Amino acid sequence: MAADGSEAAALGETMHAMVRALYPLCRSITGDGVRETLRMLSAVHPIVQREVPSGTQAFDWEAPKEWVIRDAWIAGPDGRRIVDFRAHNLHVMNYSVPVRGQFSLEALRPHLFSLPDRPTLIPYRTSYWSPNWGFCLPHSLLETLPEQTYEVVIDSELKDGAVTLGEIVLPGESADEIIVSTHTCHPSLANDNLSGLVVSAHLAAAFARGPRRHTFRFLYGPGTIGSILWLALNEAHTRHVRHGLVLTGMGDDGPLVYKRSRLGDKLVDRVAARVVGEAGGRVIDYYPYGYDERQFCSPGFDLAVGRLSRTPHGEYPEYHTSGDTPEFVKPAALAASFEAARTILETLDRDRVVVSTNPKGEPRLGKRGLYRQVAGQASARPDEMALLWVLAYADGVHSLHDIAARAGWPFARIEAAASVLERHGLVRAP
Amino acid sequence: MAADGSEAAALGETMHAMVRALYPLCRSITGDGVRETLRMLSAVHPIVQREVPSGTQAFDWEAPKEWVIRDAWIAGPDGRRIVDFRAHNLHVMNYSVPVRGQFSLEALRPHLFSLPDRPTLIPYRTSYWSPNWGFCLPHSLLETLPEQTYEVVIDSELKDGAVTLGEIVLPGESADEIIVSTHTCHPSLANDNLSGLVVSAHLAAAFARGPRRHTFRFLYGPGTIGSILWLALNEAHTRHVRHGLVLTGMGDDGPLVYKRSRLGDKLVDRVAARVVGEAGGRVIDYYPYGYDERQFCSPGFDLAVGRLSRTPHGEYPEYHTSGDTPEFVKPAALAASFEAARTILETLDRDRVVVSTNPKGEPRLGKRGLYRQVAGQASARPDEMALLWVLAYADGVHSLHDIAARAGWPFARIEAAASVLERHGLVRAP
Amino acid sequence: MAADGSEAAALGETMHAMVRALYPLCRSITGDGVRETLRMLSAVHPIVQREVPSGTQAFDWEAPKEWVIRDAWIAGPDGRRIVDFRAHNLHVMNYSVPVRGQFSLEALRPHLFSLPDRPTLIPYRTSYWSPNWGFCLPHSLLETLPEQTYEVVIDSELKDGAVTLGEIVLPGESADEIIVSTHTCHPSLANDNLSGLVVSAHLAAAFARGPRRHTFRFLYGPGTIGSILWLALNEAHTRHVRHGLVLTGMGDDGPLVYKRSRLGDKLVDRVAARVVGEAGGRVIDYYPYGYDERQFCSPGFDLAVGRLSRTPHGEYPEYHTSGDTPEFVKPAALAASFEAARTILETLDRDRVVVSTNPKGEPRLGKRGLYRQVAGQASARPDEMALLWVLAYADGVHSLHDIAARAGWPFARIEAAASVLERHGLVRAP
Repeated sequence: MAADGSEAAALGETMHAMVRALYPLCRSITGDGVRETLRMLSAVHPIVQREVPSGTQAFDWEAPKEWVIRDAWIAGPDGRRIVDFRAHNLHVMNYSVPVRGQFSLEALRPHLFSLPDRPTLIPYRTSYWSPNWGFCLPHSLLETLPEQTYEVVIDSELKDGAVTLGEIVLPGESADEIIVSTHTCHPSLANDNLSGLVVSAHLAAAFARGPRRHTFRFLYGPGTIGSILWLALNEAHTRHVRHGLVLTGMGDDGPLVYKRSRLGDKLVDRVAARVVGEAGGRVIDYYPYGYDERQFCSPGFDLAVGRLSRTPHGEYPEYHTSGDTPEFVKPAALAASFEAARTILETLDRDRVVVSTNPKGEPRLGKRGLYRQVAGQASARPDEMALLWVLAYADGVHSLHDIAARAGWPFARIEAAASVLERHGLVRAP
Repeated sequence: MAADGSEAAALGETMHAMVRALYPLCRSITGDGVRETLRMLSAVHPIVQREVPSGTQAFDWEAPKEWVIRDAWIAGPDGRRIVDFRAHNLHVMNYSVPVRGQFSLEALRPHLFSLPDRPTLIPYRTSYWSPNWGFCLPHSLLETLPEQTYEVVIDSELKDGAVTLGEIVLPGESADEIIVSTHTCHPSLANDNLSGLVVSAHLAAAFARGPRRHTFRFLYGPGTIGSILWLALNEAHTRHVRHGLVLTGMGDDGPLVYKRSRLGDKLVDRVAARVVGEAGGRVIDYYPYGYDERQFCSPGFDLAVGRLSRTPHGEYPEYHTSGDTPEFVKPAALAASFEAARTILETLDRDRVVVSTNPKGEPRLGKRGLYRQVAGQASARPDEMALLWVLAYADGVHSLHDIAARAGWPFARIEAAASVLERHGLVRAP
Repeated sequence: MAADGSEAAALGETMHAMVRALYPLCRSITGDGVRETLRMLSAVHPIVQREVPSGTQAFDWEAPKEWVIRDAWIAGPDGRRIVDFRAHNLHVMNYSVPVRGQFSLEALRPHLFSLPDRPTLIPYRTSYWSPNWGFCLPHSLLETLPEQTYEVVIDSELKDGAVTLGEIVLPGESADEIIVSTHTCHPSLANDNLSGLVVSAHLAAAFARGPRRHTFRFLYGPGTIGSILWLALNEAHTRHVRHGLVLTGMGDDGPLVYKRSRLGDKLVDRVAARVVGEAGGRVIDYYPYGYDERQFCSPGFDLAVGRLSRTPHGEYPEYHTSGDTPEFVKPAALAASFEAARTILETLDRDRVVVSTNPKGEPRLGKRGLYRQVAGQASARPDEMALLWVLAYADGVHSLHDIAARAGWPFARIEAAASVLERHGLVRAP
C-alpha cells in the first residue's frame, strides 16, 4: 500500500488542491459551511452526514443553536467598510450574536480583538457558550482607528438547528474498531484543520481499497462538542473501539509530533512512537489541552486514542490567525503526514499474535524451501532472519509489532514473514 | 503555609539561636543533657518526655544503664589540666566508665583518640555497649604530650536509670500517621544533630497550626536504641504509620540529600525526589548505614521512612568532631531545610485520590464560571490548566501527587485546583 | 575457588595446549572426529558418550546419517593435487556426498567456494540437509585455475550410524540443574569452537571439586541437531533446568559478550550482565541467530539459557575460515573466559534467599563479636557493611545476588557475609 516518491508527490498536490478549494468556506461548530465542507470532501470518499438537533443533551453539555452568518462589518461615517466579513471570515468572532447600531470607538473597543505582537494578522476568536459579539482585526489597523462614530452590523442568527457530524464506516473482518477523528469547525484556517480533513479523507479512500481486519470509522465534527455528542450518541458502541488517532495540523513544515494517549501505554502509543521516530519526529506525553483526544481520553472512556500532528497548536505564530493560509500548508508535508498516519493505522490493523506450531526447537525451514541449503556463512539472509524472528517470539504473548520492535525492523517486514509462515502452517492464530 | 523570603530568613535566625543555646549541653544516649535539651525545645512546641527504664528489653537489645558525667580530665605532674571535659564535652569518650589514677603515657595511650589527618579537631567517640573509657583530643596536642605520669580522672557513673524519649503527637482527621524522627544523643555537635532537632520542633509548631488529614508524630530519642525502643514499645501501633522522615544534618551549606526508603518505591520517595530535585538537591538509594532509617526500614517493619539531610554523615571533615560548631551551621540552610521538609510533609498529608463526577467527556467549566468565555487563544490560562489536569486524571487511580508529577508542576498548585473542583462538586473522594 | 594471576596464566596455557591438540581432527555433526574429540577432552573430566541412531525423530527433525570422510582432492592433468583434504579439512564441504570423475572448470565451478574479500583464506561450508558436494579454497587459488580437465575425488560415505552426544553430570544437593552447552561439530576451527570445548571441560573439572547446590550438566553435541536431539530425548527432564550457558568463541582477544536469554529477564541475565560488565565486556539482547541458545530458548522450552562468548560469530574476519587457527586463540583470553564463566556459574549456584531471624530493628552485632565496640567513626568497616547489607535485605524476597547488585559489590563478598550470618543464626533459609 506504501506509495513511492512520485505517487506521494502527486497525492500531496491533490490534497493541497482540496485545501485551497475548502479554504474560503466559513465553518463553525454548526452551519452550512460545515455541511458544504463535508459534501466537498465526499468527492474523495462518501461521508454520511448526521444532524444532531440543537438542545440534544450529551453528558454535561448540550448541542448548541445553529449559527447563521450572512454579513458583518464596521463602517466609518463615510459608509466605507473598515472591517469586512466578506474580506475575511476571521473578522467576525465566531458565534457572534446579531448587532446593528452606532458605536463610539470606546464602546466598540471591548468587542475588538487583535494581536499586538503580530500586528498584521487577524486573530481567530469564538464565543460559543456565552452570548457575545466581536470583530477581529490586525492590530496595525486597530491602532489607526480614529475617535468617531462607527456603524456596526453583524447580520447573524442563532436558531434551532443542528450540529452536523460526518462519518465514514469501512467494515472489517472484525467488529473491533479503529477510529480517526478530525475537527471541522475552523473557518478559513488551512493547517488547522483543512490539512487534517483532507488527510483523513484520503486515508479513508486508501483503507477502503484494501482488506481490513478492523472496522475503520472516520469521524468529522466540531471540536469538543462534536466528539462529546458522538460519544454520547454512541456510548455503548465505544466498547468496540480498540485504537484511534486524532488528526490535526498535518501540513506545516515542522516535524511530526505524536501525543500519547492519556496513560501512554497503549499499542497506538508504541506503534506511533516507532513510526514517528523513524520519520524524524518526536513523541510527547499526554496533557489535558488540545483537540478531541481530550474527550476520547476522558477518564470515563479512556480510549486508546493518540494525536498526530506536525507543529502542535500554539507553537507557530500563524496558529489561529489569518497567517494560516493554504500557502502555509506544504504538499510534501501533507503527503508525509498521510504516509505516517497510514503506516500507523495499517500496523494497528494488521498487528496480531501468532503461535508457532513447532514451538520445541526450531522447525526445519530448509525442507520447506524457506532456508538456504549451503550453510556456514557469517550471517543469515535478511528474509530468513525475519522468519526466525517471528518463530522465536511466536509464543502467544508477543504481537508482530512487539517482534518488529525487538528486531528494530519495520512492521511490514515482520508481517510479511508472518504471512509466509502462516501459509506454510508454521504459525497460526492462538 | 509557605513562608516568604523575610519570614524564612527570620525563621532561620530563630532556629540558629536555639542551636547556639543547645550547643553547650552534654548529651548522650541517656541522661540529663537529653532531658534538658527536650525541655528547651519545648519552648517551640511542648514535647512529652517518657522514661524507659534501664534493662527494658526491645527485640535484640535492651535499654542501657544511664550515664552520669560530672567531670573528667588528664592533668600533668603540675596539676594543670591538659585535657578537660569542662573545656569541651567531646574530650571524654561518651559512656566512659569511672576512672581515677596515675598513668604513664604508654598506659594511657590506648585510651586516647585523635585524628591524625585533622590534627586540630577533637574527635567524637562512644563506647555504649562495651565498658571502656577514653579521652579524645587534637592530634597536635597528643603529639606534644611528654613521657611523664598523668593524673587521670573520669568522674562518671553508670546507674540504673532510663532512656529518655520525647514525643509530640498532633492528631489529624485520620489515625493514619506521618512520623518525623530526630536523634538526640550527640553532645556538643551542632549540625549533627541540633540542626535536626530545631527543624523538627519548628515543623511540629507549623503543623500544629493548620488542619491535618494525618496524625503527625514527632519522635526524639537517642540513635539506634531510641528508635528500637520506640518500635518495641509501639509495635502494634506501627501499622498506622503511612509515611516518615528522619531528619539530620539540616544546617551545613551543602545541597539537600534525600535517601530513599529501603525499597525506594514509596510515596515519600516520589514526593521527596521532586521537592529535593526542585531545590537543587540530589536523591540517593538506601544503604544500610546512617541514622534511624535503619531501624524504621528494618525488614520486620519496612516502614515508608526516608531520610532528609544536607551533606550526609562522613562526607564533610567537620563531621563528628569539634569542628561541628554552631558557626558551621547556617541560618539560611536551616530555613531551606525546614521549607523542604515542610513541603514534603504537607504533600504527604494532603495527597489524595479524587474521582470526577463527570468522567465522560470534559465537564463544562465555563457554565460554572471556571473557564474563559472568549476562546481561540493559543493556550489555556494557567489556573484553567490545573483544573484540566486534575479532571483528566481524576480516575480513582492517580493521586494529586501523581497528577502534579505528570504535569511537572508543584503539588500545591494541583491541590488548590482539586479543592476548587471539590467545592464545585466536580470531583469527590472515591 | 577464584584463581590468582599465575594460576590463571597456567590454566590458560593448559587449555591452549589442548586446543592445539584437538585442532587437526576433522569434526562434523557426526563421526569419529567428534568421538575422538570427546575422548581427548575426557582427560580433563570424563565425558559420557551417547550414540543417537541415524533416523531418530526429534520434533521437526531427525538424526542424520553419519558422514565418513576419508580423502578428497582436485587434481590437474598432471595428477598433482591442487586442492587436498589432507592439507586442510576445510577444503571439503562438510557432508559432501561421494564423487569421482573428470570435470571441466566450468562444470566444477558451482562446487567451488571461496571468499573474494578475504582471498587467502579457505571458507568453511556445509550441506548437512541437502545432498551436495563441494570444495572450499582460497579465492587467490581459484583465480589461477586454468581451463582444463580436473580429476575430482571425494572419498566419503553417508551411512546409517549415529549422532554422538557427550555429557558430564555433577550431582548437587538439589535436582535443580545448571546446564552448560558447547557445540562439537566444527572441523579445524580453533576459536569456533575448540575454545568453548576446552573451557567447558575445565569448568566441569573445577565444579567437580567443590560442593554444589545445583546439579551441573555439561552438554557436548553438534550445533542445532545436537541440542534438538538432547531436548527431545530429555524433554520431561528439562523442567529441572534452572539456568544455563552456551559457550562459544572463548579465545579471541575481543571483549566478552553476553547474549541475553530470549526474554532477557532471567537470573542468568542479571548475573552475567554484572560479571561481564565488570570484566569490561558488553551485553546484547537476544536475537534468533547464533548457536544452541536458539533451541534452548525456543518458545516451547524457553529455558533460562544465555550465551557467553568473546567476539560474536561473523564479527571477525577469521570467523568460519582457515584463519581461525590455534594462534588466533590466546591463552589469556581462554583464562579470562573461564574465569567469567566460572563466576557466573558459581553465582547461579550459590545465590539464595535468606531471611533474618531478627527482622525488627537491627540485631546487635557487637555482642556477637561482629562489630567494633568503639564507635563514632565516619563509616562502617567494609566487612561490617556486608553484614548490614545482607541483614537489611534478608526479607525473603531479595536474593544474595539482588543484594550484591544493590550494594554494587561482588557477589562473593555478600555471599561470604551471608555465610557468617548463617553460622551465627542471624539469617536462615526461608
